[in-house]
Amino acid sequence: MKLSEFGEDALIRVLTAGLPTTPEVIVCPGDDCAVVTTADRSTYELLKTDAIVESVHFLRSQPPQKVGWKALARAISDVAAMGGLPRFALVSLASPSDIEVGYWRKFYQGLTKVARTYGVTIVGGETTRTKGPIVVSITLTGLVKKTHLVRRSGGRAGDGIYVTGKLGGSLAGRHLSFKPRVAEAAWLVRNFRPSAMMDLSDGLAKDLPRLAVASGVGYSLDRLALPRNRGCSAEQALGDGEDYELLFTLAPHAAEKLADAWSRQFPRLRLTRIGQLEPSPKVGLRLRGGFDHFRVD
Amino acid sequence: MKLSEFGEDALIRVLTAGLPTTPEVIVCPGDDCAVVTTADRSTYELLKTDAIVESVHFLRSQPPQKVGWKALARAISDVAAMGGLPRFALVSLASPSDIEVGYWRKFYQGLTKVARTYGVTIVGGETTRTKGPIVVSITLTGLVKKTHLVRRSGGRAGDGIYVTGKLGGSLAGRHLSFKPRVAEAAWLVRNFRPSAMMDLSDGLAKDLPRLAVASGVGYSLDRLALPRNRGCSAEQALGDGEDYELLFTLAPHAAEKLADAWSRQFPRLRLTRIGQLEPSPKVGLRLRGGFDHFRVD
Repeated sequence: MKLSEFGEDALIRVLTAGLPTTPEVIVCPGDDCAVVTTADRSTYELLKTDAIVESVHFLRSQPPQKVGWKALARAISDVAAMGGLPRFALVSLASPSDIEVGYWRKFYQGLTKVARTYGVTIVGGETTRTKGPIVVSITLTGLVKKTHLVRRSGGRAGDGIYVTGKLGGSLAGRHLSFKPRVAEAAWLVRNFRPSAMMDLSDGLAKDLPRLAVASGVGYSLDRLALPRNRGCSAEQALGDGEDYELLFTLAPHAAEKLADAWSRQFPRLRLTRIGQLEPSPKVGLRLRGGFDHFRVD
Repeated sequence: MKLSEFGEDALIRVLTAGLPTTPEVIVCPGDDCAVVTTADRSTYELLKTDAIVESVHFLRSQPPQKVGWKALARAISDVAAMGGLPRFALVSLASPSDIEVGYWRKFYQGLTKVARTYGVTIVGGETTRTKGPIVVSITLTGLVKKTHLVRRSGGRAGDGIYVTGKLGGSLAGRHLSFKPRVAEAAWLVRNFRPSAMMDLSDGLAKDLPRLAVASGVGYSLDRLALPRNRGCSAEQALGDGEDYELLFTLAPHAAEKLADAWSRQFPRLRLTRIGQLEPSPKVGLRLRGGFDHFRVD
């Protein structure tokens, strides 16, 4: 069967199903990052790899500084979504030979800018030639206190479902300049211990079911509550993808305290309760839309 | 200027020249791996990223198990070349949609085999779509005792230059099934502290000058001493690349002891002294050949 019929999640399940593991590995493939032990017993290391491909995630005609920003910001968003702080990055470039050196210089300017903004040090990388589109793979390490680690799988029935910011319409430009929610996630894990968290990269319609499946629960969604970017329909807020906002769940008793504390701490960033987790894993609209890397819809 | 005129080493120099660094970063871009501090004061962490591209490093028609072996074995070789032991791997696949799921299953069989052989745990990864050739990026972490760390830059004039195994002709098949020299490198750093070390990926003609430049010295090479694979000329031994043997330098007083101890420890793997480092950085044949990812020779 070809990948176009199989889908991305199924492929990852098949490939990672039989992998051996060790007690040093805390979270295996399937979450935003891998989580492994360190020499410091109170801290885990987060490991993330993420690639962007020309004509899929960006166009050659778009400013290389912004493409560089996006390449690393995506991985930073994943580290934040597990409650961690990003640390070291490696960059692997597969580049056609006919690209100008200046293109990569500008790309590195964007990369360096996002690194400096979020406390990341670029420590290495490599380059290789390709006859196809540009592929940039980013590796990012991070650290997270054990008590701050949040997985996708901890959601419980009754927990409220929240998203930061607004959704939809990212392709108009925000997908190249979004701000990964590092400070917001760090504040959340310090003050509220979300039961589950992830970042929204493939669209709520794809990512919320992933969180629910990982947590073994269902969900109900209040479509009218969806925080939409200007000019976006609910369908776009659900399906456009590349929002890079935080999606998290929290026990209901903390709802009021969270709303108050959030608006004091982050007065300029919206936080919206968009639904709740349900006991039966079968409960949940069949959400249409969202981004699958291989399926042809 | 286009990359095809610029060359790979110059590109990496330009891109990494202005990168900010921190005291946590021990070895910056330019060596086989990045080296960073850990919570354990006697140990460093090694970080490596490495990509293979279809039609550059492998062909679609070659067995995917072997391609998987090669993808991870290359990074393992880099970690070994700094004196470290490999630990965790992440896998990033950029795949055309029309590839069969079975291709990636077999690829993962090879990946798992090399991981098991060398004590690596595959902890995560991701997949993305591409309209171009397959690109597989591997991230590998490793650990190295501070006292065992060997860089490219420690070579001193007078040191002997050594290579393990035989060189040349890798494209006939060995580039897909080579054995990274993990045990050999670990034994060397425990017992002999090489002054500089790296693995031979782009060919001795490219890699020896890199070691010499990093160490600020020149070199003289005994072309007749080059250990060649069956049917290979000296030119092929110098230029074919993808040997993945160790290249290291060692103070001259230890030469005899090394020769004896090596042949007892690794009776089936050749070790050859192929020359020595020279005081003047200008001394060194202009070696022809070796693999540059962007130059069109």
